[in-house]
Amino acid sequence: MSPFRRIGVVARLRNREVVESLDRLVAFLKRDGREVIAERDTAELLADRSLAVVDRKTLQPDALDLVIVVGGDGSMLGAIRALAGLDVPLLGLNRGRLGFLTDIPPEEMETGIGRVLAGEYQLSERFLLQAEVWRQGVVVAAGNAANDVVLHPGRSVRMMEFELYVDGQFVYSQHSDGLIVATPTGSTAYALSAGGPILQPQLHAIVLVPLNPHSLNSRPIVIGGDSVIEIRVGVRDELRPAITCDGQYELGTGPDDVIRVRRQHRPVRLIHPVGHNFYQICRTKLGWGSRLDSVRHDDGNGNA
Amino acid sequence: MSPFRRIGVVARLRNREVVESLDRLVAFLKRDGREVIAERDTAELLADRSLAVVDRKTLQPDALDLVIVVGGDGSMLGAIRALAGLDVPLLGLNRGRLGFLTDIPPEEMETGIGRVLAGEYQLSERFLLQAEVWRQGVVVAAGNAANDVVLHPGRSVRMMEFELYVDGQFVYSQHSDGLIVATPTGSTAYALSAGGPILQPQLHAIVLVPLNPHSLNSRPIVIGGDSVIEIRVGVRDELRPAITCDGQYELGTGPDDVIRVRRQHRPVRLIHPVGHNFYQICRTKLGWGSRLDSVRHDDGNGNA
Amino acid sequence: MSPFRRIGVVARLRNREVVESLDRLVAFLKRDGREVIAERDTAELLADRSLAVVDRKTLQPDALDLVIVVGGDGSMLGAIRALAGLDVPLLGLNRGRLGFLTDIPPEEMETGIGRVLAGEYQLSERFLLQAEVWRQGVVVAAGNAANDVVLHPGRSVRMMEFELYVDGQFVYSQHSDGLIVATPTGSTAYALSAGGPILQPQLHAIVLVPLNPHSLNSRPIVIGGDSVIEIRVGVRDELRPAITCDGQYELGTGPDDVIRVRRQHRPVRLIHPVGHNFYQICRTKLGWGSRLDSVRHDDGNGNA
Amino acid sequence: MSPFRRIGVVARLRNREVVESLDRLVAFLKRDGREVIAERDTAELLADRSLAVVDRKTLQPDALDLVIVVGGDGSMLGAIRALAGLDVPLLGLNRGRLGFLTDIPPEEMETGIGRVLAGEYQLSERFLLQAEVWRQGVVVAAGNAANDVVLHPGRSVRMMEFELYVDGQFVYSQHSDGLIVATPTGSTAYALSAGGPILQPQLHAIVLVPLNPHSLNSRPIVIGGDSVIEIRVGVRDELRPAITCDGQYELGTGPDDVIRVRRQHRPVRLIHPVGHNFYQICRTKLGWGSRLDSVRHDDGNGNA
Repeated sequence: MSPFRRIGVVARLRNREVVESLDRLVAFLKRDGREVIAERDTAELLADRSLAVVDRKTLQPDALDLVIVVGGDGSMLGAIRALAGLDVPLLGLNRGRLGFLTDIPPEEMETGIGRVLAGEYQLSERFLLQAEVWRQGVVVAAGNAANDVVLHPGRSVRMMEFELYVDGQFVYSQHSDGLIVATPTGSTAYALSAGGPILQPQLHAIVLVPLNPHSLNSRPIVIGGDSVIEIRVGVRDELRPAITCDGQYELGTGPDDVIRVRRQHRPVRLIHPVGHNFYQICRTKLGWGSRLDSVRHDDGNGNA
Repeated sequence: MSPFRRIGVVARLRNREVVESLDRLVAFLKRDGREVIAERDTAELLADRSLAVVDRKTLQPDALDLVIVVGGDGSMLGAIRALAGLDVPLLGLNRGRLGFLTDIPPEEMETGIGRVLAGEYQLSERFLLQAEVWRQGVVVAAGNAANDVVLHPGRSVRMMEFELYVDGQFVYSQHSDGLIVATPTGSTAYALSAGGPILQPQLHAIVLVPLNPHSLNSRPIVIGGDSVIEIRVGVRDELRPAITCDGQYELGTGPDDVIRVRRQHRPVRLIHPVGHNFYQICRTKLGWGSRLDSVRHDDGNGNA
Repeated sequence: MSPFRRIGVVARLRNREVVESLDRLVAFLKRDGREVIAERDTAELLADRSLAVVDRKTLQPDALDLVIVVGGDGSMLGAIRALAGLDVPLLGLNRGRLGFLTDIPPEEMETGIGRVLAGEYQLSERFLLQAEVWRQGVVVAAGNAANDVVLHPGRSVRMMEFELYVDGQFVYSQHSDGLIVATPTGSTAYALSAGGPILQPQLHAIVLVPLNPHSLNSRPIVIGGDSVIEIRVGVRDELRPAITCDGQYELGTGPDDVIRVRRQHRPVRLIHPVGHNFYQICRTKLGWGSRLDSVRHDDGNGNA
Repeated sequence: MSPFRRIGVVARLRNREVVESLDRLVAFLKRDGREVIAERDTAELLADRSLAVVDRKTLQPDALDLVIVVGGDGSMLGAIRALAGLDVPLLGLNRGRLGFLTDIPPEEMETGIGRVLAGEYQLSERFLLQAEVWRQGVVVAAGNAANDVVLHPGRSVRMMEFELYVDGQFVYSQHSDGLIVATPTGSTAYALSAGGPILQPQLHAIVLVPLNPHSLNSRPIVIGGDSVIEIRVGVRDELRPAITCDGQYELGTGPDDVIRVRRQHRPVRLIHPVGHNFYQICRTKLGWGSRLDSVRHDDGNGNA
């Protein structure tokens, strides 16, 4: 018997494709004998009004065996942030365009999810970042992020100056548009646009990417996944820098505040169909080159 | 009693500064009651002709407790490659300019080394890369590198095409001037010039940096330190790509050869003075910004 | 007789160094028999209360033969924007740190300016950019910039989408943090931080630098100095993008507005001491390498 | 009557697609009443053995009214280099894949070339670079390039050191893998892979792109099209740097040689079908974004 008995369904986008996929998904899961529970906002989108409903905020850790997210990578990131700490695995069903996180295409929903429910799947663990704003020894604001925590000048159009510390060691001061602190998951998102490297999803590391630094010598730095990052912003120019988590919500800061970012204790488990391949998604989404005719693939050197 | 009783001394460069430092070093070590053994080529540089001499190639694993390298980062890299596997720690004495690996300046030789010998030091482990050229299931050439293994078109000025595999998974094919496979140690060397990120020295990771890729979507990738990298070069254009280890020596390849790069089993231990700080070396060598006046450093948020 | 009879003095910063330099400058110019006119705000900083005063806004085109700006590059940019169109040349006196535009150091004030007044100087022409926001065929906001006109998402932290046209030709649509349109003068400022190339100051060209573009294929583009640039922003996501001129002031935009940027008709003339050298300023400010010992400089091939 | 009476045909590649296109082209031109002359090597590829034959090297300036090149951008570059100075316009017929220079696709050969012969075409001028190696005041080697002149370390795998001068002014010394000097035409080729900007084809400018510079502050520089570039290579490390023109042939250098690169006096004229659009080729080849649904295109602000 599959371990996925009670399955939550979540969607954030409200377009036709998502609603259609949701309805199809619920019908399929019920036919398959699963108990389907809808997230409260998602329940309103569904044709089937008979489902049990749960609230993200009051969800108990053992209430669900699996959550299926219908939508794009943004919807998946939202579910990861909301469910981090509950120890329930997540599966993403994309609504048309391949995502890094939502890797079952709608036309393969029944077979793809069927296989996962039958036990054919791969697990990948992803960690989140926890961001805190400290003021005189007290946390005054906090948030979490599955992709990235971004320091930026807030309402100002001027560059900012800040100091960066890693594990208590002073790294540098920088004059720039801010700093991206990204997980491996986030390394293919905003951090990539800002010139950062791609981190293998399972790497236990964090990447720090400066945003348009004044000094051309400031470069992306990859540090260990257990590092504690601390940012101290200079107090001039009436600057009120802000912190954005996954590009979704903002934490404001005041003069002399200290921003601390570290790995959130509990990771999230993502479920992928067997054969899921990070590099294949990169090839599709980034246009990387496919196999070459000029290379022999049956040479007794392996990898045929 | 210090564990460093038998100390080897090594230098590769033959300029006056190096020879002077060597002589001073040997005199200091002898005064301090150490047994000093000179590497064969280094012995010729020394004023003191009474030293025992060893050969790098026949050196026994337990013959030395410490090796001190006099020179620049290049000399240190050479010693790391030569001594990898012997489990003897290395200490670098630079000959004027601060290095990432040779971090005791000549003017602090006696106090700096004195403290290390008295037991005040930090250890950092660095891994090396092992590069092999496989032909029909047999290794036809091999080498090791502490910084980087670089694939390049050899004698050709044309770009090359190759396929990249990581842990047996196809990553991409690429049309470029080649590929840098670098350790964290090497991430501040050639890989940085080619647009790669900086990796914290202790990170268990390898970075792959494409050299002038034709496709602008090809970006540096950071993978786990235990990954096996495989490169297969297309066989057209009479291309005979080559592999360079730490920029020092070349392994040639033939059509249909497979290049395999992985972490060398045994790491090397580097000895640093207490207070050694990677970021401080970066600040000095890369011109990163120092602490800001506009930031309060005594705010009860730590890191004062 | 020198053509510089009536000389305006301008400063924007109000720190001690600037005020001291201003007083010394005015005294020197009066001793030298020049008629000194102070910009209204600058007059308040001066010890000498006997000077004639003019207002930037009501200044007549033939009222001054030369304007000397005391301060940094920011002060010079402000003066260039304010005086563009008046056809009066500008000379920059820096207040400590070498600038790209303010190239006479304070300790060489008397000799440096003395030589310029004696007719020993070089002229360089710099063009400005004119930015306009068009709404239903009418200009609703406008500004000028000596460095750059920057499109950015305004109060939003989300990326924006826009279309770019050059001379009526569609170039691309882009998903990014915005776009920098820079003059050669601005190419060493914000555009450089964002990955743009350096443009020789006298080049008749404009550079377009995307800010953290989602697509890695979007790259800086250098176009002719007479090009008309047009930007059209998508109307979704309640985005209200803004335009910033030289990082100093903002023009807001509304849905369906069109942003047009082109060269301002009249250039500004900068005065430099003889021997002024753009590359030398780059070497100093960017840390470029100086001459090599290993190169022979007297080889009969010129350039000795 | 069309000015293109005597038309030369050129191909370099010898694959089936090229030969087929050549035969079709010759037949079409003869049907259209043109006098067709084959380049000597190209003549061997043709089914029609009745054509007049010319040699590139002995071709007279007024012998041809138009040259049509069948192949890819590489073939076109070869023809540009060979025919520079003869003042005959060139038209490129691509053999399948869109090129920056060969912009008539094979399936539109008859209509596309028909229109050009009927006088419907656009002209664009492209300049070439002339590279010279000077030794003790004498030119010992020379070549020309339509894309780029590349300085590289030749047979060495080590970085090189050189000094760069522009118009007699010292720019910087650099430790790198070399330097690309590219025309606007070449800015979308190797220079782009090395991090250079895109130059509008008609811009009168040259771009200098460092190859993996040791100093992160070395950036692409765009200079005027009439600039004289001079490179002086350090004489240590037994380095024998080489110059490559359009990636096709190499000029060797010796110690103390000076490399001089400047614009070749006579430009080449390319013929394009009416409606030819550089940015559209960029969009296709670089995957730039197309028009947005979210932008209104009929707003009375022009550009509808």
